[in-house]
Amino acid sequence: MLRSYELAYETYGEINHDRTNIVLITHALSGSHHAAGLYDGDRKPGWWDDLIGDGKDIDTEKYFCICINNIGSCYGSTSPMHIDPATGKRYRLKFPVLTISDIVQTQMVLLKSLGIDRLHAVVGGSMGGMQALCYAIEYPTFARHIVALATTAYTRPWAIAFNKIAIEAIRNDSRFRNGDYDPKDIEENGLNGLAIGRMAGHVSYLSPHSMKKKFDNNYVDKDGLYELFGRYEVERYLEYNGYNFPTNFDPLSYLFIIKTMNIFNSARGGDSLQMAYSKVRAKLHLISFGGDMLFLPYEMEQIRDIMIDIGKEKLVSYKMIDSDYGHDAFLVEVDKYGQYLKEIIDE
Amino acid sequence: MLRSYELAYETYGEINHDRTNIVLITHALSGSHHAAGLYDGDRKPGWWDDLIGDGKDIDTEKYFCICINNIGSCYGSTSPMHIDPATGKRYRLKFPVLTISDIVQTQMVLLKSLGIDRLHAVVGGSMGGMQALCYAIEYPTFARHIVALATTAYTRPWAIAFNKIAIEAIRNDSRFRNGDYDPKDIEENGLNGLAIGRMAGHVSYLSPHSMKKKFDNNYVDKDGLYELFGRYEVERYLEYNGYNFPTNFDPLSYLFIIKTMNIFNSARGGDSLQMAYSKVRAKLHLISFGGDMLFLPYEMEQIRDIMIDIGKEKLVSYKMIDSDYGHDAFLVEVDKYGQYLKEIIDE
Repeated sequence: MLRSYELAYETYGEINHDRTNIVLITHALSGSHHAAGLYDGDRKPGWWDDLIGDGKDIDTEKYFCICINNIGSCYGSTSPMHIDPATGKRYRLKFPVLTISDIVQTQMVLLKSLGIDRLHAVVGGSMGGMQALCYAIEYPTFARHIVALATTAYTRPWAIAFNKIAIEAIRNDSRFRNGDYDPKDIEENGLNGLAIGRMAGHVSYLSPHSMKKKFDNNYVDKDGLYELFGRYEVERYLEYNGYNFPTNFDPLSYLFIIKTMNIFNSARGGDSLQMAYSKVRAKLHLISFGGDMLFLPYEMEQIRDIMIDIGKEKLVSYKMIDSDYGHDAFLVEVDKYGQYLKEIIDE
Repeated sequence: MLRSYELAYETYGEINHDRTNIVLITHALSGSHHAAGLYDGDRKPGWWDDLIGDGKDIDTEKYFCICINNIGSCYGSTSPMHIDPATGKRYRLKFPVLTISDIVQTQMVLLKSLGIDRLHAVVGGSMGGMQALCYAIEYPTFARHIVALATTAYTRPWAIAFNKIAIEAIRNDSRFRNGDYDPKDIEENGLNGLAIGRMAGHVSYLSPHSMKKKFDNNYVDKDGLYELFGRYEVERYLEYNGYNFPTNFDPLSYLFIIKTMNIFNSARGGDSLQMAYSKVRAKLHLISFGGDMLFLPYEMEQIRDIMIDIGKEKLVSYKMIDSDYGHDAFLVEVDKYGQYLKEIIDE
């Protein structure tokens, strides 16, 4: 257990007089609390900037949005590379394995400390969607709307298998040194094992269709065909996104976060999924993406079916967005669902 | 180019009097010429032993079967770790990048040298199916029947992306030494980078459904849930199959073979697929598997559609086998298609 922890967060917009306009944005594996807006000197805005902002679908002229860096992540909140006050040393492998419930619990503490005791909505995709589902089940009256995108009731072996490639690639990198790596070296040069794990991640975030559309069978250079290491465009994409990642992300954070995702199950302990979802009191809005190859649409349909089975059909809505972009659609195809999401939360 | 080369092969059954019963079996990435039967002391029979043998669906009391180790592979045929007679040194990275056509050409030379100038059938799955398609197009009158299973007209970026994980994992393994590894060390201890690449392969050979069925969300040990490196059964499977592979397979062979697969296109040079398949004179039998996540059924349907479009509907048959096993189905679910395959070749 952690004796104490810090959480980094960002907010957008203003809380209204009766405090009924607060929207919590929950982030995915490699995301951060920087969900929207552009800092001076930055080339890229926050990861959901297409969705969140003044006049956008989650309109910050109307809503106060808050996004909290997940505990365990490496963007400011307490993480495996932070100092354990009990020992004066970095936690490293002694950092606790956290569940999605643990992450949500830390968020609740922060929100309470800010005087927030009710949310208009929780909105999140992928691992952020797991957090949203957790709010629906464990804090049934805390949020009016739960919007969970591109996620699942529990993580299946297919997603766990992709994560396994990352786990083994990281552990086998000699510079990982069983978690005892030199943080300065790793921050500056990145860990190649994490790059390889990230490539596996990117395969799972795309799909056969999206790759065909995005890259087709084009070569980076014409000589590539008969050069052993000549590259197709899809290979350049994976190299680029793979090798650029580890200078921005910590390998231990990655391992602990994918562990959290791997063990996610909305039905905790001995509960069945039916028992878990019978606790829901909020409006639960489920959005899947047709081409999602990581969390397949039927995984969200299962949640809808359970809600209907247990007589909560009035509390659930489900929409599959027609997309062949793959899992990444929740990040890059905001134009396909933004208006729908706006209608949900503006209701 | 290779000045000379060796090919390893196995045969089963006897050639009949009029030499009309010869079936060529073509093997996949990590397969070998040992397609059937059991050697003294071996625990496992050949990779397609369920299909090939006396009284089996490819009945060796009736057919003479031959299976040739693909050139470049590490099971006896000339490979990157063989000695280049021009230099007296191992080829290593100087081994030529081969196409499926090149592999088939070497097989033709061997078959001719054995006095075989006509085949009853070519039967192969995955990369073996690519070879079968190549026979259909480049040697139109050489085989009466072409049976291609779980394969594609050309390798799409989705399959190339899985291979990319392997390429980078191998290249980043410090013991790979840019192809200059110590063969004795690698043979004895295996290359972990290849293990990771193989894990990515195994993910692509299964499917969300097959993993759910095979492993569900079971743990190897109950403490796994809150141990960072605690394992699900799917993780144990990937570890087992990943780490056992590199002591049986050479990393350079792996790199050269996946390169061959990556650049496979039945339409070579400037030809269109239509032009390529217009050369077909044999009966072309296409078998896909419903749950194949590596070469998806629509990839084989494309070949069927082309054959119909160019007026060769009488030469093509297509069957999708109902299976949720994934790509591996062509190896492990012989009971689902063996009888059908028997009818094709016994016709």
